[in-house]
Amino acid sequence: MLRVLKFGGTSVGSLERIQNVANIIKKFKDQGDHLVVVVSAMSGETNKLIEYAEHFSKTPNEAELDMLLSSGERVTSALLSIALNEQGYSATSMSGREAGIITTTEHTYARIEKIDTTSMDKAIEQNKIIIVAGFQGVNIQNGRVTTLGRGGSDLTAVALAGALKADLCEIYTDVDGIYTTDPRIEPKAKKLEKISYDEMLELASLGAKVLQNRSVEMAKKLNVNLVSRSSFSPEIEGTLITKEENIMEQPVVSGIALDRNQTRVGMYGVIDKPGIASSIFTALADANINVDMIVQTIGTDNKTNLDFTIPSGDLEKTKKVMQNFTNDSENIDYNDAICKVSIVGVGMKSHTGVASKAFTALANEGINIRIISTSEIKISMIIEEKYAELAVRSLHDAYQLDQ
Amino acid sequence: MLRVLKFGGTSVGSLERIQNVANIIKKFKDQGDHLVVVVSAMSGETNKLIEYAEHFSKTPNEAELDMLLSSGERVTSALLSIALNEQGYSATSMSGREAGIITTTEHTYARIEKIDTTSMDKAIEQNKIIIVAGFQGVNIQNGRVTTLGRGGSDLTAVALAGALKADLCEIYTDVDGIYTTDPRIEPKAKKLEKISYDEMLELASLGAKVLQNRSVEMAKKLNVNLVSRSSFSPEIEGTLITKEENIMEQPVVSGIALDRNQTRVGMYGVIDKPGIASSIFTALADANINVDMIVQTIGTDNKTNLDFTIPSGDLEKTKKVMQNFTNDSENIDYNDAICKVSIVGVGMKSHTGVASKAFTALANEGINIRIISTSEIKISMIIEEKYAELAVRSLHDAYQLDQ
Repeated sequence: MLRVLKFGGTSVGSLERIQNVANIIKKFKDQGDHLVVVVSAMSGETNKLIEYAEHFSKTPNEAELDMLLSSGERVTSALLSIALNEQGYSATSMSGREAGIITTTEHTYARIEKIDTTSMDKAIEQNKIIIVAGFQGVNIQNGRVTTLGRGGSDLTAVALAGALKADLCEIYTDVDGIYTTDPRIEPKAKKLEKISYDEMLELASLGAKVLQNRSVEMAKKLNVNLVSRSSFSPEIEGTLITKEENIMEQPVVSGIALDRNQTRVGMYGVIDKPGIASSIFTALADANINVDMIVQTIGTDNKTNLDFTIPSGDLEKTKKVMQNFTNDSENIDYNDAICKVSIVGVGMKSHTGVASKAFTALANEGINIRIISTSEIKISMIIEEKYAELAVRSLHDAYQLDQ
Repeated sequence: MLRVLKFGGTSVGSLERIQNVANIIKKFKDQGDHLVVVVSAMSGETNKLIEYAEHFSKTPNEAELDMLLSSGERVTSALLSIALNEQGYSATSMSGREAGIITTTEHTYARIEKIDTTSMDKAIEQNKIIIVAGFQGVNIQNGRVTTLGRGGSDLTAVALAGALKADLCEIYTDVDGIYTTDPRIEPKAKKLEKISYDEMLELASLGAKVLQNRSVEMAKKLNVNLVSRSSFSPEIEGTLITKEENIMEQPVVSGIALDRNQTRVGMYGVIDKPGIASSIFTALADANINVDMIVQTIGTDNKTNLDFTIPSGDLEKTKKVMQNFTNDSENIDYNDAICKVSIVGVGMKSHTGVASKAFTALANEGINIRIISTSEIKISMIIEEKYAELAVRSLHDAYQLDQ
């Protein structure tokens, strides 16, 4: 089988860690697998190079920044290849260029445009292990080095797996898979064996940090079987992220996510004139503020209340925008002491009573729900932050996720 | 005018030093020069990467080592370009590949095969400062990164200057030019304004460390006007290394060189049978020992004495080879307490009495000359090492090099 493996910065953070990665690779090779390995820069290296660049410029020339930053991954790929060759395994490093990764022209946040697999196909045919420097490609217009922005090495791995029609794309980090909830909050949390792309996307956008949405979206689009597993515990199988159809027994709920990084904005006694909500949310969008949950309640006297949430980091920006709307309402307040708990599961679509079970569970603990929003595979609830852990644990219990 | 500048590891050894290099470049640009700048890795970086590689292998895969080591120069070129762009000067970094440097296939010691100047020509036309990552090119057969071995960045600069028909190729180091002799030995030593390629080659092979022969040879072949100057004192003009014809007033002697790194091998009472010298020197050559000066003196009884010098570092290797010849002579001894002083100057060719002046000068100080060897532009003498400095100073005086 053809396996694409990706190892992030902490997994290759020292020479010892790089040897550990070599050991993982050797085990798969001994099984007879074909392997394409994508590596990040050793942890700390990219930040060091950014600091160097910022010594000279607060806004470094972006094409040059890409030339600079792409070197970290090249170093790791060469070192890993040296280690493997020394230990009797035929390996070859490839830069993004050599791997045939052609991108758009936006330096520092380029998108992969196409992949010319000629060189990789040839190396695989020669039974060589390919070690690709992640996070980089070349500008389709002038051939200069580009980088892919945050999560770029994951993206490289998924894109290569898609282009090579790999059987698996395994993303190695320091956690061993996707859990039903954060085990630091609920020790009974269980590692999921499988989860659908859509559930993973919801969990990621709700704060699960393991995989970034950009990679999961691409995996979904290219139909790549993605695995989240740990380079520190390679004996643990990890979690497969795949098509819904590939998951035989779909549980109703797959996981509980918690996002503390939310602030609630309350706008009271809004004069109910046409287009007022539209102008508020347009102004917030123009300021690049990602409004999440919105609830409008109709009051008396032709007035309404408007509740919505924003990322806590955007609070000051939001206050500035909202100053333009002070005349449109009686009062505006901001509450940072809230959090969002979410229930995610594709099974919800075909099961009734999922939401009511959640509301009951929280009510039993005396937790008030301030805002509710639902989608086909998700229910999110805004509650007081002090109840965060209690809410997660009681929901985990209510859906028997420890079973 | 088109100027190629090359800055070595110490000249770009810190962010402050890189800014200093940017200042040198800006001054030339303000004069209206076109500039191609070749940079080395920041000092210490290459050694760090080699240590990393040696952690995994004592003989790292050479193609991978090139991938690894070439990254250091890429970092410097990007940083310097970021600095220049920030300061209002349009600059672009180029890897060896981007600069069109095509090499032979010998990884870690490739030779430059040809240079495709298309990209550089275009950038020069756009009045951009080009910052080339030195020491690297791409393998003509498969396009993989190669490195050029010791002195590779100097070589890059000279080769680019030749290909672009640059007016000057300035090699910046931490010394401000070529001196009549080592100023630490003779404080009256003077910086030479000009020197011919051949004299420079002799001085370099005699221990002057500023420029390596490989670069000077290439400069001679490509007719590149080479300048040795200091990035620490850029206001000092440095020394021009050029064609003999370009030097109007040729002094008889240009400089005095000292090489302490020599050991004399004496072989006494060698039976004078045909081919004996030949088999000794063939055996030494096969062991990769670079025999320098050889003198044979005819003794009595059909026996001769054979004196020759080797690099002191090869002493143990030499002793091993010489064991095979113990039966061919009465005695073999080794003397490390010697040194070689040399007088270099193209003017010697047309002047008589140059050698006798040297012999007189040393005789006046009571210094015995053990071996003498001469070429068209050089006289080398082996003397006792304790007289090294005295010999250099008295020769410097004899030829009035301080004038």
